[in-house]
Amino acid sequence: MNAVAKDSPNPWNALASQNPVVHFIDVCLRGAGQVMFQNNPLTGLFFLVGIFWGAYSAHMISVGIGAVLGTIMGTLTAYALRAPRENINMGLHGYNGILVGCALPTFFAATPLLWGYIVAGSIFSTVLMMAVSSMLRTWKVSAMTGPFVITTWFLMLAAYNFGNIQIISLPHPAISVQPAASDLFALNMEQFWRAAFAGVSQVFLINNVITGILFLIGLAVSSIWAAVFAFVGSIIAICTALILGGGSTAIIAGLFQFSAVLTAIGLGTTFYNPNWRVVCYTFLGTVFTVVAQGALNVLLNVYGIPTLTFPFVVAAWIFLLPNIDLLPKNYQS
Amino acid sequence: MNAVAKDSPNPWNALASQNPVVHFIDVCLRGAGQVMFQNNPLTGLFFLVGIFWGAYSAHMISVGIGAVLGTIMGTLTAYALRAPRENINMGLHGYNGILVGCALPTFFAATPLLWGYIVAGSIFSTVLMMAVSSMLRTWKVSAMTGPFVITTWFLMLAAYNFGNIQIISLPHPAISVQPAASDLFALNMEQFWRAAFAGVSQVFLINNVITGILFLIGLAVSSIWAAVFAFVGSIIAICTALILGGGSTAIIAGLFQFSAVLTAIGLGTTFYNPNWRVVCYTFLGTVFTVVAQGALNVLLNVYGIPTLTFPFVVAAWIFLLPNIDLLPKNYQS
Amino acid sequence: MNAVAKDSPNPWNALASQNPVVHFIDVCLRGAGQVMFQNNPLTGLFFLVGIFWGAYSAHMISVGIGAVLGTIMGTLTAYALRAPRENINMGLHGYNGILVGCALPTFFAATPLLWGYIVAGSIFSTVLMMAVSSMLRTWKVSAMTGPFVITTWFLMLAAYNFGNIQIISLPHPAISVQPAASDLFALNMEQFWRAAFAGVSQVFLINNVITGILFLIGLAVSSIWAAVFAFVGSIIAICTALILGGGSTAIIAGLFQFSAVLTAIGLGTTFYNPNWRVVCYTFLGTVFTVVAQGALNVLLNVYGIPTLTFPFVVAAWIFLLPNIDLLPKNYQS
Repeated sequence: MNAVAKDSPNPWNALASQNPVVHFIDVCLRGAGQVMFQNNPLTGLFFLVGIFWGAYSAHMISVGIGAVLGTIMGTLTAYALRAPRENINMGLHGYNGILVGCALPTFFAATPLLWGYIVAGSIFSTVLMMAVSSMLRTWKVSAMTGPFVITTWFLMLAAYNFGNIQIISLPHPAISVQPAASDLFALNMEQFWRAAFAGVSQVFLINNVITGILFLIGLAVSSIWAAVFAFVGSIIAICTALILGGGSTAIIAGLFQFSAVLTAIGLGTTFYNPNWRVVCYTFLGTVFTVVAQGALNVLLNVYGIPTLTFPFVVAAWIFLLPNIDLLPKNYQS
Repeated sequence: MNAVAKDSPNPWNALASQNPVVHFIDVCLRGAGQVMFQNNPLTGLFFLVGIFWGAYSAHMISVGIGAVLGTIMGTLTAYALRAPRENINMGLHGYNGILVGCALPTFFAATPLLWGYIVAGSIFSTVLMMAVSSMLRTWKVSAMTGPFVITTWFLMLAAYNFGNIQIISLPHPAISVQPAASDLFALNMEQFWRAAFAGVSQVFLINNVITGILFLIGLAVSSIWAAVFAFVGSIIAICTALILGGGSTAIIAGLFQFSAVLTAIGLGTTFYNPNWRVVCYTFLGTVFTVVAQGALNVLLNVYGIPTLTFPFVVAAWIFLLPNIDLLPKNYQS
Repeated sequence: MNAVAKDSPNPWNALASQNPVVHFIDVCLRGAGQVMFQNNPLTGLFFLVGIFWGAYSAHMISVGIGAVLGTIMGTLTAYALRAPRENINMGLHGYNGILVGCALPTFFAATPLLWGYIVAGSIFSTVLMMAVSSMLRTWKVSAMTGPFVITTWFLMLAAYNFGNIQIISLPHPAISVQPAASDLFALNMEQFWRAAFAGVSQVFLINNVITGILFLIGLAVSSIWAAVFAFVGSIIAICTALILGGGSTAIIAGLFQFSAVLTAIGLGTTFYNPNWRVVCYTFLGTVFTVVAQGALNVLLNVYGIPTLTFPFVVAAWIFLLPNIDLLPKNYQS
């Protein structure tokens, strides 16, 4: 959340401060980076490359296009609604849009209506970002990826009511029953590492080891600790899910890890100065995120929609509320 | 929200300021008008006539009686709980009660227990109005019809647990599945106009063209813009639902429109001074309300209860929170 | 909520103020007492005896052990998180932990994982207590047993997703359908009185008449009015459930009463000075709690989890928000 643009007089920042087109690209890239709390255009570039690689590998290039479209629309909406310029410049009005743009083509068929849905969704995610931020400012807590999640849930739920929105990959709505007990050592080494990297790539709804590595490099160029917490968070989540008996298929696909990755970065590096108490607290929050992932899976199975990053949002809100005096002053729209 | 009683020295207001019975009738009529944001007893009278016409036409006169009973009990409760007099006088403690009184006889059989349920529900809706207003005051947002919705949901849900409350017309609880794609031109002209007026009448849970016209006249006597936004909001909602593929039966019955009607009046005329930015923002909010209607339909299908006006409440809260400095000072209990 | 430790110079308090071990035991006992709003170690002792009696009678001694473990862990966590000492000393960080410790062995098999779950749950309940209190401080309302409920819900829901947590007695997840009408005089006298006492004992998830009597004695040593309101609250809840048509099996087991008992004590004796308006308001709140119990039963049936004390939490929040100026200053973490 450092205001890099002001501080470091590197050529890119100099260019961005003069040329409005470069400035807009800079803001959009920072929006991509803010998904994992990094106010850094180079991080955002690595994230975009990772998204396009994952989308290309899965033959779903519409995910990459959606990501770009969502970021641009979300950011433009913030200008139109006259959000504070310092928030826009930090990318705080792009990160929900990029996630909406990744999520919708993942779950819906690429019909013309999809693109309208992405445009409307990313516009709405910015309205919601301003609404949620306005509420949470009372407690000095930020909106996290809540606006993305709520926007996407609304659109997904609506798809079960409106026949012209074509679902391709949402889970079948069903009442949950308890699964069979599962083995603590269900993963071999290759699966374990695959799960660790997929847990990072799934932050943008992509199941791809190389994308995960690109995301970690993107984090490291901004903050080495962010990369460390992200990767260790993914590993803690795998272990927690194995102990509790999450299915190995879901773990290998990264589905118990991506929210925990965000919690680990968020609690560990962004909001608090790291020390051993912060490490313990972050560990607790990361483990809780996995339990919350399981609980929210059950809540949403009935509706046939995924949790997205809401386990992280819940964990971050709960674990940040008690110690709000430790929050840095400059993170909050 | 203008304090008409103080400002205009017409005979009715003069009478209301002297005679306590007339004053109470005045307050109850304003309560009816406040369902669509009009602090105007004549508007409330048109609304009541519309309700009785619709109830009579559907052979459910208990809906009309419930409406009167709910308004009176809700308002009396506010006196007993010592709510601020200026709020009571504006009708802000009658509009939830009238809606509770319309809703319960629509869904439950007219047994003796129903009348106890209406009395208890309208009392509780006033407690909830004060509770929700107390919370939302933090963000200078008003309770909208939230207290009505939450009260009625509680009573409906409880009916699935308590055998002595006889359900007559709640939907069968079921998990939603996606409907078939539907035709963009599914309505003929007559159906289209029927849908436009029924969308207005359904604000009070009534499916009746003449009632819709009476409601629009009631709006027009207070504010011509309110009537225009209401009707245009209904038409926008029809178009949105057709594009997304909402079923034509539901559209003709007004079920995708009534919340959008309230959003259009609320965002367009009540809280903001109208200008082209407000018109765009209202359009966005109205379209979103239809999506929210679809999403909430799916959420509540599992429980076999209707959304009531909650899509409007959600839309109004989300779209009013970001720009709270534009809210007039005098609207808020 | 009186700071008994400071005021009364009895031998126990003198000892507690000198010996840190006795002080910790004192704080834990007060935590037990705070479940029913009593800042009194003797009350807490009666509650613990009642819990162990009920657990022993039902051959589920793990419930008693869980209660002790949960209280200790919840309280220790508050020290570790540097919660305000005056709150810890009043037992405000023990009452959620004791309930978590009672609930989990009731619903899950006593495997080694259960104890880890109780430890993690009671730690988390304290984090959540601080988070919820931080939010609700805005409106001068306290967290009630909300942190216990939310913690336990998360863990229960997660059990439907994780195979290694063995469920023994959660209800089967199912969509609710309306039950048959039931008789107003379904209970005989013996069943009625059994229901009245079981309603009190079920506050700690125990269905046992003697436990109910021990709890009432525990209340009476702290406040005779608290005992009276608790018992009368249980009776009002029985009558309300009979009129509405709740099933007699559930009523005899105390399942419609325990939340109403807490509402009656909470609204009647703890937060407001008792007078006839308070009595009426408390009656209204108690009746509403039974309706909320029915509504929440339906909401949660789909997930196969119980309401726990959430009907009370909802009722207390709603009924305390409108009149927040009547709250005593010293109850709030």
